[in-house]
Amino acid sequence: MRYKAIIAYDGTNFNGFQRQPNGRTVQEEFEKTLQKINHGEPIMIHGSGRTDAGVHALGQVIHFDYDDPRPLEKLRFALDTQTPDDIAVRSVERVAEDFHARYHVVEKTYHYKVQIQKPRSPFRRYYAAYYPYPLDLEKIRQALPALLGTHDFTSFCASGSSVEDKVRTIYQADLEVNGDGTELTFIFRGNGFLYKMIRILAGTLLKIGNDRLAVDSIPVIIAKKDRNAAGPTAHPEGLYLAEVKYAENP
Amino acid sequence: MRYKAIIAYDGTNFNGFQRQPNGRTVQEEFEKTLQKINHGEPIMIHGSGRTDAGVHALGQVIHFDYDDPRPLEKLRFALDTQTPDDIAVRSVERVAEDFHARYHVVEKTYHYKVQIQKPRSPFRRYYAAYYPYPLDLEKIRQALPALLGTHDFTSFCASGSSVEDKVRTIYQADLEVNGDGTELTFIFRGNGFLYKMIRILAGTLLKIGNDRLAVDSIPVIIAKKDRNAAGPTAHPEGLYLAEVKYAENP
Repeated sequence: MRYKAIIAYDGTNFNGFQRQPNGRTVQEEFEKTLQKINHGEPIMIHGSGRTDAGVHALGQVIHFDYDDPRPLEKLRFALDTQTPDDIAVRSVERVAEDFHARYHVVEKTYHYKVQIQKPRSPFRRYYAAYYPYPLDLEKIRQALPALLGTHDFTSFCASGSSVEDKVRTIYQADLEVNGDGTELTFIFRGNGFLYKMIRILAGTLLKIGNDRLAVDSIPVIIAKKDRNAAGPTAHPEGLYLAEVKYAENP
Repeated sequence: MRYKAIIAYDGTNFNGFQRQPNGRTVQEEFEKTLQKINHGEPIMIHGSGRTDAGVHALGQVIHFDYDDPRPLEKLRFALDTQTPDDIAVRSVERVAEDFHARYHVVEKTYHYKVQIQKPRSPFRRYYAAYYPYPLDLEKIRQALPALLGTHDFTSFCASGSSVEDKVRTIYQADLEVNGDGTELTFIFRGNGFLYKMIRILAGTLLKIGNDRLAVDSIPVIIAKKDRNAAGPTAHPEGLYLAEVKYAENP
């Protein structure tokens, strides 16, 4: 029986989502818990995609195969309470045997948070990037619409990525400011994103807001298909995988 | 020259405010920084009061003696950037030579945060207590006013406290709920609080909200002058020292 689960995690103490030889990962911790409730038999999980060290998830999606007689809410509760405190299991549902958390993604939403107050709040140090320099938010807002639509985003992809096709479609690119003006949230929604793309987008938009790149530079950067044309890669702690959508739950 | 500073800290990785033989403390880290900028000569700080391990501060107040030729904002910036990331220095001002951060306190405000959503958010695990049981917030709101005014709060003081006079005056006792209903904040403002008093108040009020203590039990508990009459001591991670006021800055 195949299950789909929506999980949240605080990425601070993880060396990313994907299991690897060194460092604690979300996959390893989740699989340990599954193995425990499966009487010692290992169960492998598949995520919608990797997240890097320090990157958070509000709504990462995974799937795994397992036969459990419990009602779904009992299974969710067992997984939620037995995974470590930095992982929460928001929902568990049964899905078709051919559902795949990675291959069937149709849309992903990421948030990127930036703390702009002085001094920096110690409570946000792992949960938002820090940008203490002047920012013209109106300039950022003017620059955002140029990202919408279908483009070759080579300029916003970390060099070294092995992905061949760098054409992606962005449906939403917004900037929100919290109630007391201390924190920005970029919201990016699209059919997929390249390696470190959200962090390079954030780094570039902050550079526009700081007047070190022109407001109308996004189309120029896209056209160059050169990583060096874009801004720096913003820090991982500001990044959240917020939501993953599939054809079967539009 | 005497300085007063307002500092914020994330208490998660501190064994409390006050210097002690074992464990990292706020006082020790702050004094290390002062010693560094004072060319190796030690400077002692005095806080408005202790905070326990895991307890946070939005506005702890300290004083120290030091002669610095810098403009105040430069001193604040130097202290803010040279203290560890879990301490922020919000303000520094020069005060009279007889100002004392502890002896001259006239009012303190504490916040106590409780996460009530299911599942527990991994992002709040160090920053709010967790209460996943049924809560009638209206009952808590009805119980709060009985705390206002001047009372002997022996019932709300951790046993073992050496303080003789347990009479304190509470000016404000409120309950706020955040925008999406996931977190409560108790706000207590008074002329002073006993050891663990806010955490025992929170534990007692949650018990009232959970219907295991009567709505009108606060006056009865106060009258008993017995720690066992009150509810349990709520966890430290929900507690924030929010503000300290002095006669000279009303």
